[in-house]
Amino acid sequence: MKRQVRRRSKIKRFRHAPPGTSPGMITIREDALLPKIKAFEYGPDYFREIELKGLNDIKQFINDKPDRQHWIDIRGLGDKIFLEELSDYFGIHRLQMEDVVNSYQRPKMEDYENHLFVTSRCIRETDAGIIDEQLSLFVGKNYVLSLQEKYHDLLDPVRERIRNGKGYVRQFGPDYLAYILMDTVLDNFYPVLEHLGDKLDDLQDELLSNPTRNALDKVLFIKRELILLRRVIWSERDKINDVLRSNLKLVTDNSKLFFKDSYDHCIQILDLVESYREVTASLMDVYHSSVSNRLNQVMKVLTIISTIFIPLTFIVGLYGMNFAHTDSTTGNKLPLNMPELYSPYGYITVLVVMIVIVVLQLIFFFRKGWLSRS
Amino acid sequence: MKRQVRRRSKIKRFRHAPPGTSPGMITIREDALLPKIKAFEYGPDYFREIELKGLNDIKQFINDKPDRQHWIDIRGLGDKIFLEELSDYFGIHRLQMEDVVNSYQRPKMEDYENHLFVTSRCIRETDAGIIDEQLSLFVGKNYVLSLQEKYHDLLDPVRERIRNGKGYVRQFGPDYLAYILMDTVLDNFYPVLEHLGDKLDDLQDELLSNPTRNALDKVLFIKRELILLRRVIWSERDKINDVLRSNLKLVTDNSKLFFKDSYDHCIQILDLVESYREVTASLMDVYHSSVSNRLNQVMKVLTIISTIFIPLTFIVGLYGMNFAHTDSTTGNKLPLNMPELYSPYGYITVLVVMIVIVVLQLIFFFRKGWLSRS
Amino acid sequence: MKRQVRRRSKIKRFRHAPPGTSPGMITIREDALLPKIKAFEYGPDYFREIELKGLNDIKQFINDKPDRQHWIDIRGLGDKIFLEELSDYFGIHRLQMEDVVNSYQRPKMEDYENHLFVTSRCIRETDAGIIDEQLSLFVGKNYVLSLQEKYHDLLDPVRERIRNGKGYVRQFGPDYLAYILMDTVLDNFYPVLEHLGDKLDDLQDELLSNPTRNALDKVLFIKRELILLRRVIWSERDKINDVLRSNLKLVTDNSKLFFKDSYDHCIQILDLVESYREVTASLMDVYHSSVSNRLNQVMKVLTIISTIFIPLTFIVGLYGMNFAHTDSTTGNKLPLNMPELYSPYGYITVLVVMIVIVVLQLIFFFRKGWLSRS
Amino acid sequence: MKRQVRRRSKIKRFRHAPPGTSPGMITIREDALLPKIKAFEYGPDYFREIELKGLNDIKQFINDKPDRQHWIDIRGLGDKIFLEELSDYFGIHRLQMEDVVNSYQRPKMEDYENHLFVTSRCIRETDAGIIDEQLSLFVGKNYVLSLQEKYHDLLDPVRERIRNGKGYVRQFGPDYLAYILMDTVLDNFYPVLEHLGDKLDDLQDELLSNPTRNALDKVLFIKRELILLRRVIWSERDKINDVLRSNLKLVTDNSKLFFKDSYDHCIQILDLVESYREVTASLMDVYHSSVSNRLNQVMKVLTIISTIFIPLTFIVGLYGMNFAHTDSTTGNKLPLNMPELYSPYGYITVLVVMIVIVVLQLIFFFRKGWLSRS
Amino acid sequence: MKRQVRRRSKIKRFRHAPPGTSPGMITIREDALLPKIKAFEYGPDYFREIELKGLNDIKQFINDKPDRQHWIDIRGLGDKIFLEELSDYFGIHRLQMEDVVNSYQRPKMEDYENHLFVTSRCIRETDAGIIDEQLSLFVGKNYVLSLQEKYHDLLDPVRERIRNGKGYVRQFGPDYLAYILMDTVLDNFYPVLEHLGDKLDDLQDELLSNPTRNALDKVLFIKRELILLRRVIWSERDKINDVLRSNLKLVTDNSKLFFKDSYDHCIQILDLVESYREVTASLMDVYHSSVSNRLNQVMKVLTIISTIFIPLTFIVGLYGMNFAHTDSTTGNKLPLNMPELYSPYGYITVLVVMIVIVVLQLIFFFRKGWLSRS
Repeated sequence: MKRQVRRRSKIKRFRHAPPGTSPGMITIREDALLPKIKAFEYGPDYFREIELKGLNDIKQFINDKPDRQHWIDIRGLGDKIFLEELSDYFGIHRLQMEDVVNSYQRPKMEDYENHLFVTSRCIRETDAGIIDEQLSLFVGKNYVLSLQEKYHDLLDPVRERIRNGKGYVRQFGPDYLAYILMDTVLDNFYPVLEHLGDKLDDLQDELLSNPTRNALDKVLFIKRELILLRRVIWSERDKINDVLRSNLKLVTDNSKLFFKDSYDHCIQILDLVESYREVTASLMDVYHSSVSNRLNQVMKVLTIISTIFIPLTFIVGLYGMNFAHTDSTTGNKLPLNMPELYSPYGYITVLVVMIVIVVLQLIFFFRKGWLSRS
Repeated sequence: MKRQVRRRSKIKRFRHAPPGTSPGMITIREDALLPKIKAFEYGPDYFREIELKGLNDIKQFINDKPDRQHWIDIRGLGDKIFLEELSDYFGIHRLQMEDVVNSYQRPKMEDYENHLFVTSRCIRETDAGIIDEQLSLFVGKNYVLSLQEKYHDLLDPVRERIRNGKGYVRQFGPDYLAYILMDTVLDNFYPVLEHLGDKLDDLQDELLSNPTRNALDKVLFIKRELILLRRVIWSERDKINDVLRSNLKLVTDNSKLFFKDSYDHCIQILDLVESYREVTASLMDVYHSSVSNRLNQVMKVLTIISTIFIPLTFIVGLYGMNFAHTDSTTGNKLPLNMPELYSPYGYITVLVVMIVIVVLQLIFFFRKGWLSRS
Repeated sequence: MKRQVRRRSKIKRFRHAPPGTSPGMITIREDALLPKIKAFEYGPDYFREIELKGLNDIKQFINDKPDRQHWIDIRGLGDKIFLEELSDYFGIHRLQMEDVVNSYQRPKMEDYENHLFVTSRCIRETDAGIIDEQLSLFVGKNYVLSLQEKYHDLLDPVRERIRNGKGYVRQFGPDYLAYILMDTVLDNFYPVLEHLGDKLDDLQDELLSNPTRNALDKVLFIKRELILLRRVIWSERDKINDVLRSNLKLVTDNSKLFFKDSYDHCIQILDLVESYREVTASLMDVYHSSVSNRLNQVMKVLTIISTIFIPLTFIVGLYGMNFAHTDSTTGNKLPLNMPELYSPYGYITVLVVMIVIVVLQLIFFFRKGWLSRS
Repeated sequence: MKRQVRRRSKIKRFRHAPPGTSPGMITIREDALLPKIKAFEYGPDYFREIELKGLNDIKQFINDKPDRQHWIDIRGLGDKIFLEELSDYFGIHRLQMEDVVNSYQRPKMEDYENHLFVTSRCIRETDAGIIDEQLSLFVGKNYVLSLQEKYHDLLDPVRERIRNGKGYVRQFGPDYLAYILMDTVLDNFYPVLEHLGDKLDDLQDELLSNPTRNALDKVLFIKRELILLRRVIWSERDKINDVLRSNLKLVTDNSKLFFKDSYDHCIQILDLVESYREVTASLMDVYHSSVSNRLNQVMKVLTIISTIFIPLTFIVGLYGMNFAHTDSTTGNKLPLNMPELYSPYGYITVLVVMIVIVVLQLIFFFRKGWLSRS
Repeated sequence: MKRQVRRRSKIKRFRHAPPGTSPGMITIREDALLPKIKAFEYGPDYFREIELKGLNDIKQFINDKPDRQHWIDIRGLGDKIFLEELSDYFGIHRLQMEDVVNSYQRPKMEDYENHLFVTSRCIRETDAGIIDEQLSLFVGKNYVLSLQEKYHDLLDPVRERIRNGKGYVRQFGPDYLAYILMDTVLDNFYPVLEHLGDKLDDLQDELLSNPTRNALDKVLFIKRELILLRRVIWSERDKINDVLRSNLKLVTDNSKLFFKDSYDHCIQILDLVESYREVTASLMDVYHSSVSNRLNQVMKVLTIISTIFIPLTFIVGLYGMNFAHTDSTTGNKLPLNMPELYSPYGYITVLVVMIVIVVLQLIFFFRKGWLSRS
């Protein structure tokens, strides 16, 4: 129970600088990790992967073979000076770098003179519910700069694909790499939703057999997670639509075909989220109807027992009255005072009458359908 | 009951490749069927129908009389190499072929240089509820390529119409054939909806006479099916609208007149689905009001029985008290202690009083309307 | 009750050809009536009305004085050959003629080379609820062709107006006649809505005094009828808007002024329908609050009676206990065993105590407000 | 109660001519008042106010000094011939004059060659709820024609302002006068809404302390009035937006600034109406939770009393049993038959046991929180 | 309780002039404060701050060094003549000045020839709930004029930043200052929302453990505040969007980048508000399910106690009947009259029977799950 309460308490909050802070100020969070920089250089039949140690390494790495594709893969945003230098070198506006660091941004795409700025949300399931981390991408002519807050991320399949040259990734430009990164992140909605679907299935069974408050709380919790997912995927869809509609010089027509596919995936995921939301709504209905069903059953038991025994209790009470059979003064009989008590078959008669009453009542209840199960 | 639970558990899921899979990869499902290829060649006064055995047959079949219309009718998508060759020969992008195979796509229309790519959803009713399978069409200058997952499909009436030359099908081009295929699939919404309407009629009767949880579950189940249908028909409408609005070189003005008719059908089906959804909503109302009605009835019975007998029980209990009539020490009468017990007409009087009480209460209940049926 | 069930069962269905039927095929329903053709020829100061007997009569009638206005008023659609000939003569596409015969079409307007095709829905109230029949109009340069399924229709006022030349009808062209026909049909929403309003008034009174399920069913039934009306009037509005926005060569600016008036009527009717829908929603609220009110009252009666008599019954039971006053062996008094029973004023005291308890409880209930009416 | 029923019965209806009436026919209602014509002539430093007696007076009045502004202020629409002459003289289309007389029109603006036609709704609160009357304006180059159904109206502040020349009214043209008239009418929403707000405050207090059906009915009644107001103000907003967006030759840029202010007022009023609608919704919640609270309290009282006394009644019933202490035949003691009854401390023991039971139960109820107030 | 009622009574009202007041009239409220004028003059490396005393001071202050930036920071709107002079000097239309004084305006932006007029709402939390005050800005070529009603405001961080020259504020023009002012006000939504989030967390815990009406009232109160916040932030978003879309000559491209950031903040805040609204909705669900849970528990206790003791009471009543064992006249035994009473083991047997009954019932209740907690 305790754990339940705590889980539900997680009302979403965003990190934000205190009111009145200057805009464009990069404020590093205390628990931020130091940056780890991995770099990939590749062409259709070439591939190199090294660790870099700061901006100078990055400059040298990119400028060494400018005609190749480069992916600068930065994880950890705990070094303010490095981020500022990075901004200056790549011509990134401070507001954008602030968006990277204050890491709650809706998925969005912004077109600048020398690069595209794109953010995506990485959905991951944890014990405390679904969390969404940010992936920020800067896409230039011959590089992709990716920035994430945590070391552990969802991009390993892409790294692997670059290493072994499977798929088209090494044949196309940085726009295709950006597409692959965004698409990989988007693909992670499927297993998360599948897991939610499993949970809803279980809850459905639980609510039908035993409608507890605990199960209801879980339904409400999943409902909130679906609302979160819907909001993210909705913005994701808008973002991809922006890429498709805008006339971006950095995105080729070939890549647009792939982005169109991502767009279809967004629609599909939205469909799933919407249908799960309908399921949570009908689970609420199931819960409420189960609860009122239970109350009905409790009341039926009470009514049946009361209705059978209350009249009987009256009858036996009747013959427990102490009306005098003889006038104590004169000793005369008082023949109207409860003569039944003095009849030889009085007791038997009363028992028979009571049995008849019970039988009639049972017939009545049976006809009303109150003796049936549901 | 068991079966009910299992039916409701069918929360919709989509098949999808694992996250990180390269886009455009055709992954054949294990239980996929091997392709069966039927081919129709026809003109206004000509018709031929044969079985083909692979890409070479198809090439030859089409190129043999390129001025005739050809329908390559493929059922079963279990041969990866064949599908890849097919893509290459007809100039189909791998992403489109992936859409054909990973067969959950919203109805959509995409215009390519040499062909139109169109998907439709085939609605069919089964014991486990409504399922929707995919029909994928590639429409070229002198051919229509149709791909479906299962051998059993909804297109037999079209095949029959080509064979016997009824209607316009053999007189017009491949755009008209595509229209006929899509329209035939769309027409199948009517009997499915009609069947849902019958079920709702039955449920309505059931809920009015006996509001069980089982019936409620069925209503919720139908509600979900309607949501599914609505989503499909909505996209279908958008798709046909796309066909009407886009300036497609492969669709003639004559065919557009027919697509406009399909569009009207979509609107009509949407109307039906919406009005059925309203019906499910009001059935929920009927259920809830029936349940609370029942509780009211149970409570009325309890209240009437209790209210009648509890006072009577008090009275008979009163005269069951053992207050001493004589002081056991002195033998004196204690005349204030329950003199009623020693009156000759005491018992009769008490009986009469109780009958009067019952009669008064019955009048009260009758006035309140609690003795009436509903 | 039976009748009620049957009324509610009327879930709307559309007629449709079986799936796979060729489009544009005119299928006559078995119970279709044979066509009756009335024809009106008129100018500002001229008027002729005759019965015609088939296409030849019609041709001759129109071509006789082509500079006059002609209204060919056809009721009954049971003659397939006649309808096909009619299509051919007036250049009507088979899909349009199919729309005329399969008579459920949303109100719509379609512009063709030589004529406008317009459908309206004629709302009429019957014992089985509201029905909507179709009025199909083809408006040409010097004629209006109107087609309806039934002999009995709503257009008599228009015929009368042509006969006696009142209003503008004989002064303007066929577009104005079409307007008059559509407007007359639209006007019939008012009395139907007024009648629904009367019914809602009655139901309101009924639900306030006696909230039966029957009344609830009627509310749900009216709600569905309002949904139907809303859908029809919504499309009607769209249709008239189409007429106003499109640059139709057959509709003069003068007639557009009148169509604008019709548009305002549609908005007004929509307002009415929406406000009635709000009324049905609040009637549902009234019903549910009445029901729970009733339950509360029943429970209050039960609680008051039980709470008063259960303690009293305990007291009288207490003094019905048989604790021995004297030790039967020794004959000694057992002075602690219920000495009250042997006190001269015991009975009176108990009665007084019980009266005091009742009075205190009544005061408690009065304070709680449970003795008041509502 | 009676009065309540009647108030709620007021389901809104519109006046309309019978179906089939010719459009553009002016039908005077039987209870229509005869026209009273007031006329104002003014310039920046000039002002004249007279009563007129028919069209001739009006012609002469306007044509006398055509360079001055004129306001023809007509109240009462009971003279058909006068209205027809008026239409002819000012070039007003019969459909517009019909809109003036059949006085339910949404607020709307229509631009004609020589004048603007504008309708507004005058909101006024009466004992029977809120009523909305129509103000129709025709705005020409040097005149404003205002028509209203009733003698008593909301425009006195404007008349006063013209008389004493306060504000800009005498400095600007007829478009500004029209603005002033519409704005004055619009301003009357504020006190009406304020009064509704007061009523909602009172109802809130009432529902919290004593949730009667009567109060609920009042909430539902206010809800309907808010729906009416919302519809009116919504159209009002659209109308003013039309004025702002259309390029009207009769409305100067200066006046548009003022209309923009009116537009902001509409938004503000809409905000108020929406927030009041939220309040009515939450009052419904308050009502329902109050009712179920009450039921809970009633049930708690019943349960506490029953649970305390039913076991006690069992115990005293137990010792009221008549098991024989001695065998009547042999005179032997039957020592197993209720020896408690013959123990010297039996009665005391039973009393103590019962007190202990009651105390334990009270502790149980206290722990459950059932003895607390709410 | 009292306090609760009063809090909930705060139904929002707007101040407005009485109907019929001339537009553009500045009406000072009685409790309005006298203006305090602070002025800042600054450039990239210069800064001056003085108190001014009226329009002449302001004129002189601005015209002294017209190439520098000036912020005229006016708090208190209680001097009508000063405000009128101000309007005249800065070319502010009277309607705008009325908007400043009648201080409820939605956030909006209006573009005039010489200045921009912008209003923002300053959200602040007080004991009586959330209040929103107005900040009005006039942005000219080399000045920003800010007007507020109260002395105490949210702009101190901006003043501080100008003083110590941190951030970009002294380097950019008045459009950037306006942005900073609006952004600072916008930033104050975060702590207010965070506090609401804390309250919702507490209420969630409270409702789960003890669902009181008081807690429900608080939820409804927060819901209304969220509705208010949503409306404000929605208009704020529209306003910033206006700034971004309009081609304003006073807003540089550089500032637009910053406004875009504000726009993202609005979206983020809207997201938060929406998710909190979802939380209030689910708290309502929690409340209602808690209440019905409670009722169920109460009813279960009643039913268990009644069902156990009512049959037992019947049994003991049965053996309390006074059927005569011997015929008082003849002295003969009446052996059928309750022989149990005279059996030596009668009492023990009855006790055992009753214990068995109780055990069976407990097993029944346990199986039904009624003895479990929830």
